[in-house]
Amino acid sequence: MAEEGAPTGERRSLVAGVDIGGTKVAFAIADGAGRLLLQRRRPTEPSGSAARDLARMADDLRALLAELGATPSALAAVGVSVPGPMDPEAGVLLRPPNLPGWQRAPVRAALEAALGCPVAIENDANAAALAEWRFGAGRGHRDLVYLTMSTGVGGGLVLDGRLHRGARAGAGEVGHVAVEWPGETCGCGLRGCLEAYVGGRAWTQRLQRATPADSLVARLAGGAALARPEHVVEAARAGCAFALSELDRFNEYLARGIAALAFTLDPALVVLGTICVAAGEDLCFAPLRAKLRARLWPEFADHLAIAPDALGDELPARAGVGVALHALEAARA
Amino acid sequence: MAEEGAPTGERRSLVAGVDIGGTKVAFAIADGAGRLLLQRRRPTEPSGSAARDLARMADDLRALLAELGATPSALAAVGVSVPGPMDPEAGVLLRPPNLPGWQRAPVRAALEAALGCPVAIENDANAAALAEWRFGAGRGHRDLVYLTMSTGVGGGLVLDGRLHRGARAGAGEVGHVAVEWPGETCGCGLRGCLEAYVGGRAWTQRLQRATPADSLVARLAGGAALARPEHVVEAARAGCAFALSELDRFNEYLARGIAALAFTLDPALVVLGTICVAAGEDLCFAPLRAKLRARLWPEFADHLAIAPDALGDELPARAGVGVALHALEAARA
Repeated sequence: MAEEGAPTGERRSLVAGVDIGGTKVAFAIADGAGRLLLQRRRPTEPSGSAARDLARMADDLRALLAELGATPSALAAVGVSVPGPMDPEAGVLLRPPNLPGWQRAPVRAALEAALGCPVAIENDANAAALAEWRFGAGRGHRDLVYLTMSTGVGGGLVLDGRLHRGARAGAGEVGHVAVEWPGETCGCGLRGCLEAYVGGRAWTQRLQRATPADSLVARLAGGAALARPEHVVEAARAGCAFALSELDRFNEYLARGIAALAFTLDPALVVLGTICVAAGEDLCFAPLRAKLRARLWPEFADHLAIAPDALGDELPARAGVGVALHALEAARA
Repeated sequence: MAEEGAPTGERRSLVAGVDIGGTKVAFAIADGAGRLLLQRRRPTEPSGSAARDLARMADDLRALLAELGATPSALAAVGVSVPGPMDPEAGVLLRPPNLPGWQRAPVRAALEAALGCPVAIENDANAAALAEWRFGAGRGHRDLVYLTMSTGVGGGLVLDGRLHRGARAGAGEVGHVAVEWPGETCGCGLRGCLEAYVGGRAWTQRLQRATPADSLVARLAGGAALARPEHVVEAARAGCAFALSELDRFNEYLARGIAALAFTLDPALVVLGTICVAAGEDLCFAPLRAKLRARLWPEFADHLAIAPDALGDELPARAGVGVALHALEAARA
């Protein structure tokens, strides 16, 4: 629970954020400038019914507001970050992983009815991009590309101060830009996708197949068949040759993906999450920048900033708030 | 000379467009809605001095305005399309090909001083994207990607009704997104660039090396060493096996480049110019769409429109007008 200010009594002066993850739901109440007043997290515990789960989330928000002496009538907007593809116009989830009963769940309509204020929803990569742009590594930049670098590789594009969703809310699927031909088969069925090389799921599968039994990676994991990217990072710090070669491969493919982004969008900043943050400057960011020099024109490489995400554990609380504030600004424009 | 309407006497009610090409300069005067009132084209004839060349262009515009009974005081804005990279903030060309004396030419400042109205400049790919979006294949779409498909492969991105230039005006350099590893060496020095496969210069070099002496392509060109992409298109229409295999290769690499764009930006529409227009539906667009089905998720492939440019010979006259109107709208926003 973070307290950065006090709530005002003004009507519609607050915003709320909800981050619906596969394992946890995060709630936050913020003032109109995005300062967090209160936040809370609990296990997702899906009941099998989206309607019931959404009603419980509305109750959670009401309870948080009550702690501030407020009711839902104080909310100018609620922003919701949801996993997986969604239809932002309809406010509906399409194929939510790990949320039984949530297929085409009418998130926006259910929460608007329960809370009586406008609700905006975005997929988690877009929500994280908005949060990093407003509160994190992207503060003060006109645009950024955020890459989740998690189980999969999701992307969010903030261009000229606005989220770019694309014609059918498909923009930012940069995990499926090809970086090798014909390349490895990706979980999506296509071949050579960036995600098939640097996504956590694909990399883990490779490690559990390819890790030498006598390597430090295998020892740290308690067996090669249990090896995961975080063991590679730890072993690389201790100088394990296999781990270093795996990270070199990771950085190589990531550089190819970022080079494609840079020539297409010329962003000021690319923000990388999760495993890149764990690997840090020495094992990820510095070698990545060196590889980008070989794959970009100097005028691109000289100016493109590559940075770790800055919000870390605060991201779930900030994600929904970022969505709410962006929706309010879009409505004003 | 096209006349689509009559000039009004209202002050600042007109816009002018200038398209500075390596061989020709096109001028156009339009009303505030973009309807062309008058257009003219002449050889570029660079004098070796950008200042002298720009003064002559201002004189040309004054003469066109005089034909409409107007003076530069009737202009709300002038839009200029320039070849090669430029700095849109400073209004300065960086490395103009085929224009001796134009290195860092202060295009905006010179024309603003001569004409007494705001001048906006864009590179030719961005200007063409704006023109196709407003007047051509992209009418009614919220966004489009335009690919020049000419000597090189330039791109312009109109996203959500605005030109996306990127942090350093480098957005849209999609000709240098890699489509093969390590791939052919591109004219830019990098390897595997889309332009190294489908750019007119690179393709011509390949054809002059690889065209079989007994092929129809060689016969049409007057010798394999003179073969060019347009001979491939003509020979393919007559069933030449070498020409058909060359077009298949062209479409394959172009599909790889467009797939990367689609997963990144999810545009409603990709507009292709020049050689794709010449090859047409049967030799380019239909096979390209089939290849994209194999490289995109169905939800992308089902909805992405791929279309030839619609302005053709009208593009030079429209390009500068599109830039002027976009600048006026940006100033109002």
